[in-house]
Amino acid sequence: MTTTVEKKSFEATLSEIAAFVEKHIYPLEHTFLQDGFGAVLPQLKELRKKVKAKGLFVPQMSKDVGGMGLSNYEHGQVSEILARTPLGHYAFNCQAPDAGNMEVLHQYGTDLQQEHLLKPLIAGDIRSCFAMTEPEHAGSNPTIMSTVATKDGDDYIINGHKWFTTAFDGSSFTIVMAVTNPDAEVPHERASMIIVPSDAEGLVHVRRIKIVGEEGEDHHSHSEIKFVNCRVPQRNLLGVEGKGFAIAQQRLGPGRIHHCMRWIGICERSFDLMCERAATRELSPGVPLASRQTIQNWIAESRAEINASRLMVLEAAKKIDEEGSKAARQEISLIKFYVADVLMRVVDRSMQTHGALGITEDTLLSFWYRHERGARIYDGADEVHKSVVARQIMKGYGVKI
Amino acid sequence: MTTTVEKKSFEATLSEIAAFVEKHIYPLEHTFLQDGFGAVLPQLKELRKKVKAKGLFVPQMSKDVGGMGLSNYEHGQVSEILARTPLGHYAFNCQAPDAGNMEVLHQYGTDLQQEHLLKPLIAGDIRSCFAMTEPEHAGSNPTIMSTVATKDGDDYIINGHKWFTTAFDGSSFTIVMAVTNPDAEVPHERASMIIVPSDAEGLVHVRRIKIVGEEGEDHHSHSEIKFVNCRVPQRNLLGVEGKGFAIAQQRLGPGRIHHCMRWIGICERSFDLMCERAATRELSPGVPLASRQTIQNWIAESRAEINASRLMVLEAAKKIDEEGSKAARQEISLIKFYVADVLMRVVDRSMQTHGALGITEDTLLSFWYRHERGARIYDGADEVHKSVVARQIMKGYGVKI
Amino acid sequence: MTTTVEKKSFEATLSEIAAFVEKHIYPLEHTFLQDGFGAVLPQLKELRKKVKAKGLFVPQMSKDVGGMGLSNYEHGQVSEILARTPLGHYAFNCQAPDAGNMEVLHQYGTDLQQEHLLKPLIAGDIRSCFAMTEPEHAGSNPTIMSTVATKDGDDYIINGHKWFTTAFDGSSFTIVMAVTNPDAEVPHERASMIIVPSDAEGLVHVRRIKIVGEEGEDHHSHSEIKFVNCRVPQRNLLGVEGKGFAIAQQRLGPGRIHHCMRWIGICERSFDLMCERAATRELSPGVPLASRQTIQNWIAESRAEINASRLMVLEAAKKIDEEGSKAARQEISLIKFYVADVLMRVVDRSMQTHGALGITEDTLLSFWYRHERGARIYDGADEVHKSVVARQIMKGYGVKI
Amino acid sequence: MTTTVEKKSFEATLSEIAAFVEKHIYPLEHTFLQDGFGAVLPQLKELRKKVKAKGLFVPQMSKDVGGMGLSNYEHGQVSEILARTPLGHYAFNCQAPDAGNMEVLHQYGTDLQQEHLLKPLIAGDIRSCFAMTEPEHAGSNPTIMSTVATKDGDDYIINGHKWFTTAFDGSSFTIVMAVTNPDAEVPHERASMIIVPSDAEGLVHVRRIKIVGEEGEDHHSHSEIKFVNCRVPQRNLLGVEGKGFAIAQQRLGPGRIHHCMRWIGICERSFDLMCERAATRELSPGVPLASRQTIQNWIAESRAEINASRLMVLEAAKKIDEEGSKAARQEISLIKFYVADVLMRVVDRSMQTHGALGITEDTLLSFWYRHERGARIYDGADEVHKSVVARQIMKGYGVKI
Repeated sequence: MTTTVEKKSFEATLSEIAAFVEKHIYPLEHTFLQDGFGAVLPQLKELRKKVKAKGLFVPQMSKDVGGMGLSNYEHGQVSEILARTPLGHYAFNCQAPDAGNMEVLHQYGTDLQQEHLLKPLIAGDIRSCFAMTEPEHAGSNPTIMSTVATKDGDDYIINGHKWFTTAFDGSSFTIVMAVTNPDAEVPHERASMIIVPSDAEGLVHVRRIKIVGEEGEDHHSHSEIKFVNCRVPQRNLLGVEGKGFAIAQQRLGPGRIHHCMRWIGICERSFDLMCERAATRELSPGVPLASRQTIQNWIAESRAEINASRLMVLEAAKKIDEEGSKAARQEISLIKFYVADVLMRVVDRSMQTHGALGITEDTLLSFWYRHERGARIYDGADEVHKSVVARQIMKGYGVKI
Repeated sequence: MTTTVEKKSFEATLSEIAAFVEKHIYPLEHTFLQDGFGAVLPQLKELRKKVKAKGLFVPQMSKDVGGMGLSNYEHGQVSEILARTPLGHYAFNCQAPDAGNMEVLHQYGTDLQQEHLLKPLIAGDIRSCFAMTEPEHAGSNPTIMSTVATKDGDDYIINGHKWFTTAFDGSSFTIVMAVTNPDAEVPHERASMIIVPSDAEGLVHVRRIKIVGEEGEDHHSHSEIKFVNCRVPQRNLLGVEGKGFAIAQQRLGPGRIHHCMRWIGICERSFDLMCERAATRELSPGVPLASRQTIQNWIAESRAEINASRLMVLEAAKKIDEEGSKAARQEISLIKFYVADVLMRVVDRSMQTHGALGITEDTLLSFWYRHERGARIYDGADEVHKSVVARQIMKGYGVKI
Repeated sequence: MTTTVEKKSFEATLSEIAAFVEKHIYPLEHTFLQDGFGAVLPQLKELRKKVKAKGLFVPQMSKDVGGMGLSNYEHGQVSEILARTPLGHYAFNCQAPDAGNMEVLHQYGTDLQQEHLLKPLIAGDIRSCFAMTEPEHAGSNPTIMSTVATKDGDDYIINGHKWFTTAFDGSSFTIVMAVTNPDAEVPHERASMIIVPSDAEGLVHVRRIKIVGEEGEDHHSHSEIKFVNCRVPQRNLLGVEGKGFAIAQQRLGPGRIHHCMRWIGICERSFDLMCERAATRELSPGVPLASRQTIQNWIAESRAEINASRLMVLEAAKKIDEEGSKAARQEISLIKFYVADVLMRVVDRSMQTHGALGITEDTLLSFWYRHERGARIYDGADEVHKSVVARQIMKGYGVKI
Repeated sequence: MTTTVEKKSFEATLSEIAAFVEKHIYPLEHTFLQDGFGAVLPQLKELRKKVKAKGLFVPQMSKDVGGMGLSNYEHGQVSEILARTPLGHYAFNCQAPDAGNMEVLHQYGTDLQQEHLLKPLIAGDIRSCFAMTEPEHAGSNPTIMSTVATKDGDDYIINGHKWFTTAFDGSSFTIVMAVTNPDAEVPHERASMIIVPSDAEGLVHVRRIKIVGEEGEDHHSHSEIKFVNCRVPQRNLLGVEGKGFAIAQQRLGPGRIHHCMRWIGICERSFDLMCERAATRELSPGVPLASRQTIQNWIAESRAEINASRLMVLEAAKKIDEEGSKAARQEISLIKFYVADVLMRVVDRSMQTHGALGITEDTLLSFWYRHERGARIYDGADEVHKSVVARQIMKGYGVKI
């Protein structure tokens, strides 16, 4: 249980992070927006040293491996602050998908894997990625999967086609979900996670996919890849064979908390930009845009929706911390679609408030408008989560749908 | 600070209230819907005795006057449970406007007023009402008011026109807001609260106003009244002369919490009715309505919105408890429009799920659909609250609008 | 094809009707709202004489039986004007369900039926009703029906339970849909329409159903009825046995046009009330409500949506006139849900613009808000029509859903 | 008046254009999306020859200058078809802003201007642009403008800052709006249109602005430019001095029709993609996405909204053709915000239906999602048009707001 002293100290940490982000990362945004992630990478690497020096690096990891040992409830709040800028999570080394991979390696990795992969990941020396989604199959049922890993001697030979492999470009290794036990009775016990060096023979980089107009690069990119008779030793298995989905599931709960808190951070920054614009743009001398009732409505509605989002997400985080991901399944699905919707609306209102400026890349709004459109799709589309919630509730009424 | 023991005990109280409401009050609803409030009044009076016997009567009042001494945070939760039925608050004697009047009399009433008005109100022996809104003036600026009370000897002579005087029908006294100090520089210091016996000469009952189709009766009614040279002694002044708005303001903060929690109670019951219907109505043998994705969407969206509402309202209640109404002004405005909107949507979805049945009075939905439409209007229209929020936020950006 | 002269003359007729409605029917509204349909019935009967004298009575019927011989396209426009007041259609004797019944009798009735039922209906001497919906079955599949008519000698013996039998109260006869051919292979060929005198033995009037708070009376009511061994001669069959749905289907296409045009009439009047209120209600001296941008948004959005609705409905009407109901099936489903939605939104905005006044019955808005809530449910719920449209469109993509 | 023969022939033309677009332009889209406008420019230039050969080039211009002499009503329909692909208008040489510039030059240009500018524009040999919007001023009041043209001998010297100068990149000349008569009493009579060669000294190209993530190139780009003591002869004035706004206004009415019809074309293509996806994507073997009711809702709602949009826009076009732009001012404002809203919703639903694929650039949806976000902003933001409509309607109620 958190004591009052600890609570104060955590709040001080949040303020420290906020100040750091504003002071050191905001100034990089213009270059990032105009010239891309690569253009700010050198500075980001310098900033990472500062973050480490402050003891704020990899905040999500436990203290024994060098992190801050935060609960989901706490890390959610950190994540919100970092998300005020598209570069925040990277600077603190808690960016997706590395954060999730660190978690999984920490929990399931062999000593060797921890030594050679987890350690440098935590240190920020390498990056990783996670290959699950396949272009040929609907994301709503991930057990329908074509990628297979068949055994050959001490190796796996992997064949398959993946896309939306975030941050493959520049990564050291890829954790791939592949069917290893096609005959398992339960569909959820057919696949495993296997670690593949990103430069392995047979791991073909097809392209960085343009996402709503932008190809991106390095950590800020999403790739299409192919496994063509890609051979890796069986010791590259992560955790137990056939337990790929079980591991993924565990990762998804907290992962969705972090996504949602990230979205809230984006909302807060967008909200701030909207208010700033409303205060400073003049319709005629002395008459600010904020005098228009439509703008006032947007400000009030956004404020309500962001507040609602944060309360719900933190509530869900607390439940995960206290009762585990499974117990919080309904809460997690609720926030997934609710907050994604709020995100799109707040960003959109802020864009509209900015007029022509809003659709340029001179503010962050246009970046988020396009880059975050996927929020309603990845990790379970809105529509899927709604049905999940309804199904669970209906059970309480004696109906199986 | 609430201890764990107290928390447990409070939760037990909530369960007790919920069980009581479900067991004793739900069975009266059908008669209420078909035949009106008067038809269930005798049973309600009997139930009040049971509630008293359990020590749950007037839960909102402090213990010294016989209440449960609940904080806003706690009473909000009680209020939600009572609101699952249109008759709950009355049974527990915490119905508007009596609850607000008790509060005001408790805080500002003279000994005489407390003895002769507050005591029987708390005992549930009499009812009262509150006359503020005027048909000729927009509610958005209550200081524009035509009702005046002029001094004549030891009396006030009151003239004016009020409507939406809830529960005037059958009340013992009316607290009327009237201009007593027309020349006060600050508009908010011109009016006072004056107590008028409801049967006073010159207090004319024009009509019970039909609200979205129903005139109602007794406590479930809203009247139009006129003051025509209505004379009352000056000792009927409530509190200090010219401080009518200050008193009203203080009353409004918690009042809005209670409204919002009441709406959430209505949402929860409507939600339950929707799920029950979805589970039991068959589209064809063995295929429940719940199998339709649109219904699933409504269930999930409603769940999210109700959860969000409760978290926001309880957060605001806590702030009022800890920092006072004034500090929580923004939170109060936010929940006022946010929850009113959720209320209308949840009730509407539940109606639609019920098909033709939903527009009959065979369920509560139709009653709430019409009776609660005012939620977006009274105590400040949505639009007014949104502007209030925006104005306050814009101050933080250095702009006065 | 309509000539220019005819077009002019039709427009003159529309103006004449509009002037009549405004001059003679609007003045009855206040009494109608406060005291019910019965209170204005005597005046309405007087007005019917005037309408007859002008040659505008039963405008929807062909000229040979005394009507105006209007196309659906034309009658739709008449219907819109009449709908500006809740009493318009009755005054012109084109109210539901009589209008539909006249049509059906005209097309399928035997000479005897035409003489004894159609003639007095057209003359406005009697009223009728139509009993189809059953409380136990979802409206989305009307072929699932429990009411049966079994043959016994020359009679049918009818048993069943119906509700939402509009205007049963005071009607002379009821057209009931009942299963006569339970063994027909095609479910749509199992039921027939049978005429039952409303005072027949075994036709039990259970109640006038309260619809969103109001029971109504006479033509303005909706009843629950039961058939208990109700015996009628087999010559009371309407049309061919087993063709009940075929006849109903034919009636529904134009019926939906008329509903939609009626809703547009309600929208126009609500819009006018909103603008009038915005123009005359002052927020402070000289500052009308119309100065608020939110109100401006509502005015503009409502204008766009009403215009869109009318264009779509008239387009559908033209298609029915030219190609028949079946060809226009998609258009009819589209307007059914689109216009019902616009209706609810426009009425709601107008109510909100009226503030507290909007929820009283001092304007028509509150009446429509509650009385028209059924628009999204009867004649096929929104959700059903949307699926119908999607299904039809998907056929064009080679998919049967 | 259009005869039936002409109507048939026009419909044949529409079909011909549709077939051409589908056959010749659709195949270029993939390359356009992946590699940009420049990559398909050579093929487009070839296609233009084919279009010319068919007599379909510059369809919007009158026959005397080589166009098809279409009314707004007719060209709207052509425009819709061309808009099914982002490359359609260019192929037919009726792309903005050249189309508007041709119109203006045709109507107001001197013989010299017509010979040297209009002729090659119509021939498709050169391109042009139009510089009006300024970054420092809100678009809602264009008369607040900082760009000035002062006279110096026979020249104008222009100074100012413009952005969103569409297609400056690669253009031969720019029509710039600049204040020439700062002392004119009426603000709308202070500015003129002046023609400036795009390579003139003092016309500085600051950048192609990234619009929602993409800089674009050539005709598919929007530039920021500066005029720094840019000198042009006074004979470059277009029309009468001080009449810049009058000319612009005339151009805007039809311009908005074309925008709206273009958006409808985008809607239709997006709708088609949505249906195609719903039909072919399988949730499990044999169960298409179209079986989900949410998708069905989107299909039905989109169909209704697109139909409504087209009817409204064509109605407005007809009004412009028959009564002029000024008479159709309200209709034009209505469609501007109504159709822009429908556009965003239809594209968004289609994206969501495509899941992960929808946010890649492997379909057109992502391109439109980002590229058309400006629709709610340019040529008058939604909010401005709504107020314009409300203001005009309120005049009819005797109120000036």
